[in-house]
Amino acid sequence: MDEKNTNRLEAFSDGVFAVAITLLVLNIKFSGLDSRGNLLDDQHLWNNLHDQWPLLVAYVTSFATIGIMWINHHRLFNHIKRTDTGLQLFNLLLLLLIVFIPFPTALLAQQYAVHPDQHLAAAIYSGTNTIMAICFNLLWRYASYHNRLLGKDTDPRSVQAINRQYLFGPLLYLISFGLAWINVPSSLILNLILALFFAVPGRPPRQLT
Amino acid sequence: MDEKNTNRLEAFSDGVFAVAITLLVLNIKFSGLDSRGNLLDDQHLWNNLHDQWPLLVAYVTSFATIGIMWINHHRLFNHIKRTDTGLQLFNLLLLLLIVFIPFPTALLAQQYAVHPDQHLAAAIYSGTNTIMAICFNLLWRYASYHNRLLGKDTDPRSVQAINRQYLFGPLLYLISFGLAWINVPSSLILNLILALFFAVPGRPPRQLT
Amino acid sequence: MDEKNTNRLEAFSDGVFAVAITLLVLNIKFSGLDSRGNLLDDQHLWNNLHDQWPLLVAYVTSFATIGIMWINHHRLFNHIKRTDTGLQLFNLLLLLLIVFIPFPTALLAQQYAVHPDQHLAAAIYSGTNTIMAICFNLLWRYASYHNRLLGKDTDPRSVQAINRQYLFGPLLYLISFGLAWINVPSSLILNLILALFFAVPGRPPRQLT
Amino acid sequence: MDEKNTNRLEAFSDGVFAVAITLLVLNIKFSGLDSRGNLLDDQHLWNNLHDQWPLLVAYVTSFATIGIMWINHHRLFNHIKRTDTGLQLFNLLLLLLIVFIPFPTALLAQQYAVHPDQHLAAAIYSGTNTIMAICFNLLWRYASYHNRLLGKDTDPRSVQAINRQYLFGPLLYLISFGLAWINVPSSLILNLILALFFAVPGRPPRQLT
Repeated sequence: MDEKNTNRLEAFSDGVFAVAITLLVLNIKFSGLDSRGNLLDDQHLWNNLHDQWPLLVAYVTSFATIGIMWINHHRLFNHIKRTDTGLQLFNLLLLLLIVFIPFPTALLAQQYAVHPDQHLAAAIYSGTNTIMAICFNLLWRYASYHNRLLGKDTDPRSVQAINRQYLFGPLLYLISFGLAWINVPSSLILNLILALFFAVPGRPPRQLT
Repeated sequence: MDEKNTNRLEAFSDGVFAVAITLLVLNIKFSGLDSRGNLLDDQHLWNNLHDQWPLLVAYVTSFATIGIMWINHHRLFNHIKRTDTGLQLFNLLLLLLIVFIPFPTALLAQQYAVHPDQHLAAAIYSGTNTIMAICFNLLWRYASYHNRLLGKDTDPRSVQAINRQYLFGPLLYLISFGLAWINVPSSLILNLILALFFAVPGRPPRQLT
Repeated sequence: MDEKNTNRLEAFSDGVFAVAITLLVLNIKFSGLDSRGNLLDDQHLWNNLHDQWPLLVAYVTSFATIGIMWINHHRLFNHIKRTDTGLQLFNLLLLLLIVFIPFPTALLAQQYAVHPDQHLAAAIYSGTNTIMAICFNLLWRYASYHNRLLGKDTDPRSVQAINRQYLFGPLLYLISFGLAWINVPSSLILNLILALFFAVPGRPPRQLT
Repeated sequence: MDEKNTNRLEAFSDGVFAVAITLLVLNIKFSGLDSRGNLLDDQHLWNNLHDQWPLLVAYVTSFATIGIMWINHHRLFNHIKRTDTGLQLFNLLLLLLIVFIPFPTALLAQQYAVHPDQHLAAAIYSGTNTIMAICFNLLWRYASYHNRLLGKDTDPRSVQAINRQYLFGPLLYLISFGLAWINVPSSLILNLILALFFAVPGRPPRQLT
């Protein structure tokens, strides 16, 4: 087996996260021109920008989502110290989903701003998050199984804290997927709570290093 | 608390800065074709390129702005040696604004070239810069509060020099925001002076390392 | 000769891989709008997404292809420890092909979904893969010739395992290129087998590090 | 003065080079569809691809140009070991040009394929290369002046070899700029020779490290 340190895997992943989070901005299309190519005056420019708030909401939401995924990835690789082909493949699967996430987010922002009674966009959004939570679990379970790829000095309590936190992720996202077909706002609120839940470490103030 | 070194945070931020600064070039649309898809001869090509100078000005200005933000980020992380979840979130907030900055810049270049009497684009530009200056302050105050995340060998005079320099940033940008509603050129000149002010270190020639 | 360590060459290559794999997402154009700019309801949105499955297949296939190329690049640079101008040029040639690979893949996905009887797209796809396999060989043979740029502690059996695995790559891809003109599905299956073959290390479980 | 090591400057520059070289691929627009959105059969697909060779030539040329610039940047930073604000600003200026280079290249490829008698595109191309050569000189002269930012163990003969090689760059590119107004092919050939000249190290086989 090729087991190596994780430097290049982290550098490559950071690159993918950085590009994915920056490409989000391409969805914002500010233009100071009207449809005939003439420049707008302040009044019309203001109206024009005002109409674009769903795109701005999608930008901020996607940015926060990918940012929180990066914080999680970072946290896992504090403990994962070696890599093999299996880990590389699970990591690629996770990155595939992270690069994809802006699409359901933009679709949701676009739809929900105008058709709050439609369920499909919210379901696709929650469904993508569910699959993402499963992929994070696969990566972590693969690496932490019998401490296979973890550092020798890993604190077992940190590993357990992550195990516990990650156990409920897919289940709760699956509930938000179900809710999307019944009541869209409550599904979105659950998604928001879950994002914040994954932004903070598993068992907060443990010890100072 | 997960406190770790800042290597991955810097690598991820460098990636975001690098992508954001390079994507600027996508706004330039040189084309050697006329609107019917025929190739232009030298005379018409020259006229065509000549009409695009606002885009070139926006490219150079945005590039310089993001570049100077990178120099500032670099300077802060000479002193910040550890990271925790709070710092990662403040850093993400800052990156969100840095990735966004090309939009107000392009809008301003487009508008100001033709409608120098309109105020909104200049106000949005100064306003974005004000929020950015506040975010830089939040990041720095969070990290330097009681030397929380600074290196042990940090020179307190360097920290104070940054503190002093950063104190005036948001105030002065707020003034440029006010000026944008009164007199656009003086607002732009103040923005330019502030950019140069933040490009140089807080208390210039201190000591050689 | 400028012989140096490979850190920057790996960082630059990781950056190119990361950008190339992330740009794939730009080919997906989800839109919740119909051709007149009105928002679609759930039923029409579903149909619209459903029609885009060739784009999704192309996204996943290209992502997997570039990901496996990254795993291979990573594996070679476990052994290559120094760099010179020749290696940099061979590496650039390889990156040129890797950045290009999404095009034949998208073309194939688009064509094969509708015209399974047409051969050209499959031939271009196999042909690009053949050239890529040759470039991987050039890079590796250049570096490993008389152990020129390999680490001093490289296991000769690992080098031989890579040599053996890489020997058959171009030949087998050339066969898939020939098959593309005769029978497209069998050519695609051979390409798939080859991708999986290159995803796993040369001589699987050798020893644990 | 903030003098620090060059790690982050190199990482940021590598990121910019990597994004710039990968974005080149966005100029290639393979499409298996005709202008009405129908899929092309093999015969028409072949014709369609065949018409796009100027785009492919521009892709390969720009990729080689940016790649060779990266090799040069890499070579200089083998010797440059510390950074200050001045170096960061000269480096940003250089990156501004490197990110810009695909435009004159694409313009030239587009024009020269159809209007070989027009001079402007070739002049813009040579002019951009001249400015780039000047920026490389500024960066290097700033860093190497009295060995200001070079490593302590830098071989003075390597520094002199780079000095000599860089002295002629701007002059020769200026000649190619002049030639563009007289005879386009000879200007292009001179540009090609210069690119190859800068791809190889200053004084080739010196010693093995």
